[in-house]
Amino acid sequence: MTVPALPPMDVAARAGRLRARFPGAGIDALLVTRLPNVTYLTGFTGSAGMLLVGPDELVFVTDGRYAEQAADQLAAAGVTARIEVRVTQSAQREAMSAAARGYRRLGLEAHGVTWAQQRAFEAEWFPEADLVPTEHLVEDLRRVKEPAEVARIQAACTIGDEALAAALPTLAEKPTERDFALRLELEMRARGATRTSFDPIVASGPHGAKPHARPSSRAIGPGEPVVLDFGCVVDGYCSDMTRTVSVGDPGPDAWRVYDVVLAAQQAGRDAVRAGADCATVDRACRVVIDEAGWGDAFVHGTGHGVGLEIHEAPRVAATARDTLAIGYVVTVEPGVYLPGVGGVRIEDTVVVTADGADVLTTFPKEFLL
Amino acid sequence: MTVPALPPMDVAARAGRLRARFPGAGIDALLVTRLPNVTYLTGFTGSAGMLLVGPDELVFVTDGRYAEQAADQLAAAGVTARIEVRVTQSAQREAMSAAARGYRRLGLEAHGVTWAQQRAFEAEWFPEADLVPTEHLVEDLRRVKEPAEVARIQAACTIGDEALAAALPTLAEKPTERDFALRLELEMRARGATRTSFDPIVASGPHGAKPHARPSSRAIGPGEPVVLDFGCVVDGYCSDMTRTVSVGDPGPDAWRVYDVVLAAQQAGRDAVRAGADCATVDRACRVVIDEAGWGDAFVHGTGHGVGLEIHEAPRVAATARDTLAIGYVVTVEPGVYLPGVGGVRIEDTVVVTADGADVLTTFPKEFLL
Repeated sequence: MTVPALPPMDVAARAGRLRARFPGAGIDALLVTRLPNVTYLTGFTGSAGMLLVGPDELVFVTDGRYAEQAADQLAAAGVTARIEVRVTQSAQREAMSAAARGYRRLGLEAHGVTWAQQRAFEAEWFPEADLVPTEHLVEDLRRVKEPAEVARIQAACTIGDEALAAALPTLAEKPTERDFALRLELEMRARGATRTSFDPIVASGPHGAKPHARPSSRAIGPGEPVVLDFGCVVDGYCSDMTRTVSVGDPGPDAWRVYDVVLAAQQAGRDAVRAGADCATVDRACRVVIDEAGWGDAFVHGTGHGVGLEIHEAPRVAATARDTLAIGYVVTVEPGVYLPGVGGVRIEDTVVVTADGADVLTTFPKEFLL
Repeated sequence: MTVPALPPMDVAARAGRLRARFPGAGIDALLVTRLPNVTYLTGFTGSAGMLLVGPDELVFVTDGRYAEQAADQLAAAGVTARIEVRVTQSAQREAMSAAARGYRRLGLEAHGVTWAQQRAFEAEWFPEADLVPTEHLVEDLRRVKEPAEVARIQAACTIGDEALAAALPTLAEKPTERDFALRLELEMRARGATRTSFDPIVASGPHGAKPHARPSSRAIGPGEPVVLDFGCVVDGYCSDMTRTVSVGDPGPDAWRVYDVVLAAQQAGRDAVRAGADCATVDRACRVVIDEAGWGDAFVHGTGHGVGLEIHEAPRVAATARDTLAIGYVVTVEPGVYLPGVGGVRIEDTVVVTADGADVLTTFPKEFLL
């Protein structure tokens, strides 16, 4: 186990910061339905639960499966909430309906309720309230990671680094993509990761041309670039990194792509600092690839926030309107994809600091093994 | 690898069955946004893509990451669709907007779009159409599994059976819950499973009182009932099973609970047949547990459909209004949970046939190891 002792998080303080945003959003209370947001505000990690954040109280409604877990996790997080366990949907409706009575303008997370839920909330759950669509109220708080959150992401990144170091020597044995993906995962779990933060991508040779290729039964051959994109979860927080490597010389064409992507990724990292626009970071990467003539082959954005979710705010892309601030954790992951030939992507997870950015994924960027 | 050769699925035929439901839903076309439904209709398994099902054509819009995968998977599934790859959100909007022009009543999956999406679709994507909320149009088709789908679920169930047989002897070595969960997972993957269908539950002693406990670092001791709930995925289709076992005699109180749950589960399975109401199946289980005096300790529904998703229609619960039909695949999983003491759950996945039901998870139900 390489998971260090993790500093405690002040979960209970988060609801206050959320309430401070209520006047701006024009709401009296917020029904939090997006599970990562519920986790952020309560510590609860089950698959079903809703949190009503009122001005003076928190009411958490879940079903019978989670009675014990909810009590345990909220207590462990130091969160004071009224926990209502209701087995059926209609009993949950009654409990939440009663809890929300008196709130005139009730916020619903527009990205966290389905249209069907919104219709049921309007007609049946909260017929007397004005339902107000809110966007990113909790997600915006989550952009700025507390030091204790960064410690968790760092722990996950370090496990990723160590797992790659442990797994990489086996690449010379020509494993299948799927077997190597499993090996990476096991190395992460053996070091204390809860799970992978997403299904690892192991894309060799021509498969590398698909940015999100799924590991196949293809054996990884010598001289073939392999895109390795993977991460894990520690205490709820994700890591994300990509390296592209080759066992044996992949030839001058592959080297040329590699060097361009490496330079683009360095340029992107150099652009990450508090006050920089996300679009500027994207542009810093993109201009290097454009100048090499592969602009059309960089088919995705430069990166994304990482935290309780593997993809969260902000986006780092040409069309992004966000500005980086201290405590933001984002990926920088340019790539070039040549259909029928292969691909190269290099990715780090970085945290914005007072004087630039710290790279949390420190595994070396050597193309040739 | 124990995955047998899987019979081909007629994916391309599904859109026609969906279109036959358009008049009843009052729509000219349907925008399919729920990813399992997109998979069902196209074979595409990526994390981003929308399918517009018009009367005469399919239009699939995805982003740059999935250009190759979309082309490959739709071709492999024999699905003819216009594939539009657009890197940015606004370009995707333009492509889908153009494709939907002329449809007056455009269905949106009310459970498959967020309120925020619905608002953007209404104001920006399809300002000229009437957006009609549809519910379960594709999900209802998915209830009846084609024989080739049942073959995949059976393959996943068989892998679960074999993995449990392989892992169970190690339970005597007092592994931690987490280590045993990992062992189960590896045994499934070694047999060809793509992944687990959900994070395995390994809940020993008092942890068994939480129906959805997460595996912990607790060592599993002798004489302690352990709830093992797990499954895997084969070619997109899930399995689900639960056994409760004990290494060494857990004592008469535990036996009494076990025998009641076993009888309840048998009663539930016996009630599964075409034409039976799901509420009747739930009741068949519940009455056995009620009579034993533990009605309040059976805190969840009896089961759920299984297929491309681990939880899908129909629900098998007291408040369900569904009726079973040939080809439905559901779980039967009663349980009794005694806080501070422990729990017992027993679960099979079964398929409704012309003359009753076939159990797909055939691992023996022996409490004592």
